Amino acid sequence: MTDADDLERIRRAGHLALDAAGQVLRRAFRTDLRIDDKGGPGAYDPVTEADRAAEQAIRAVLRRETPDIGIFGEEQGHEGPAEGAGTGLWIVDPIDGTRSFMSGFPTWGTLLGLRRGAAMVWGAMDQPVLGERFEGDGRTSRLGNRPLRARPCSKLDDAVLYATTPDMFDEPSWRAFDTLAGRVRLRRFGGDCYAYAMLAFGCIDLVVEAGLSPYDIAPLVPILEGAGATVTTWTGGPAHEGGRIVAAATAELHAAACEVLASAGT
Amino acid sequence: MTDADDLERIRRAGHLALDAAGQVLRRAFRTDLRIDDKGGPGAYDPVTEADRAAEQAIRAVLRRETPDIGIFGEEQGHEGPAEGAGTGLWIVDPIDGTRSFMSGFPTWGTLLGLRRGAAMVWGAMDQPVLGERFEGDGRTSRLGNRPLRARPCSKLDDAVLYATTPDMFDEPSWRAFDTLAGRVRLRRFGGDCYAYAMLAFGCIDLVVEAGLSPYDIAPLVPILEGAGATVTTWTGGPAHEGGRIVAAATAELHAAACEVLASAGT
Repeated sequence: MTDADDLERIRRAGHLALDAAGQVLRRAFRTDLRIDDKGGPGAYDPVTEADRAAEQAIRAVLRRETPDIGIFGEEQGHEGPAEGAGTGLWIVDPIDGTRSFMSGFPTWGTLLGLRRGAAMVWGAMDQPVLGERFEGDGRTSRLGNRPLRARPCSKLDDAVLYATTPDMFDEPSWRAFDTLAGRVRLRRFGGDCYAYAMLAFGCIDLVVEAGLSPYDIAPLVPILEGAGATVTTWTGGPAHEGGRIVAAATAELHAAACEVLASAGT
Repeated sequence: MTDADDLERIRRAGHLALDAAGQVLRRAFRTDLRIDDKGGPGAYDPVTEADRAAEQAIRAVLRRETPDIGIFGEEQGHEGPAEGAGTGLWIVDPIDGTRSFMSGFPTWGTLLGLRRGAAMVWGAMDQPVLGERFEGDGRTSRLGNRPLRARPCSKLDDAVLYATTPDMFDEPSWRAFDTLAGRVRLRRFGGDCYAYAMLAFGCIDLVVEAGLSPYDIAPLVPILEGAGATVTTWTGGPAHEGGRIVAAATAELHAAACEVLASAGT
């Protein structure tokens, strides 16, 4: 199998899986949802039945289409071949932005990506209510048939910065984020995966977050990189492992943001 | 003319005006926008050409359909008959959530309402990219043909709270908001008018904000009240004049929120 055939097989399976999840999620959106609390005392971590049902729908398709590839998902852990088998590992987040979903906002997404070794070879963010599917393979990215390109913003002064919520930062991270926010044109909260998609689209310039799990960010990496953006941890490590993340429209802007974050709070 | 005929004339003009604005805004969304800065040094108050063009489109329709009614809009001030003439005053915000619009998020809206004396007799929030139009007359509200009903949340412990951004609060207001946020189930940022629409829809329970202009909130009042929600200033004054606003799913929740806000920071 050539690389192109292989990527096409991955893409096809990914699209079918997202179609299946989208059916579940469109039906569940803005209906009465049973919300469980899977966090401990003091934590509030809502998981809806829709979240679980969507992940099951994705797993059922991937099991059938790519039985040689293991699956790691937010809700139901690991199944299938170990990644060491060399085929890779599917990474699934059925609803990134569960709290937006619960609140009726259409700015959540289903994340699905394929990791092979240290590389994310394909990833997608699907917003089934809006009918938007952002995807990338690290070299090119698109929304439907429209190519995605981050905008040429290279200076903090000009940048529009997003983070999902102030509540995602611990104290030193917040100090660093807040210092950076004072240097940019505009900071906004809210977004989850949608902010990264808008960075790839060329509408915003920076997303700086903390406390991300691998499945929150890994599928977005090939979309961002395929749109020309740079995404790493705050200290330049691989983004797909999660943690504290900086995504920037250009390498120059990324370097400027990392410098401020490093000197301000860490 | 009966009251029902009169309301029907208002609604018809309002819908035509929103249709015209929606055409302009759907075309402009996620394209390159010339962004002026109408704030002074240090302020950042983006106004897009789309914003102005949408308000012009609304005014052209209202001038034609209801020449007896004056118009007050965010971008272009007052025109037409003074409100004293008794027919009322149209209140227009062509894009509530300009920063969301700029950032490519579909959670902004066009606000249009009719004030008569101290009452908002009709109001609508239109999201033309999503094809969603929320409207109300203070007694009933709907999204398209679906009736809107706030949910029966009466306790802070159970409430999901929204505000557009921490940056809208001055220091004592922030202290009060933050104290209230510590008492609720979940707080989230982001939203603009979309958060009020989701309150009317029954997806969230509380919106607490500060620094609103009359046009930011007045058209939302009859939608909220028509869905059974309560909306006033933090001290119980009429919401349509703007300022610091509390909107709550029930009167009990509203009273509980006002009490915390009053004792915490003001």
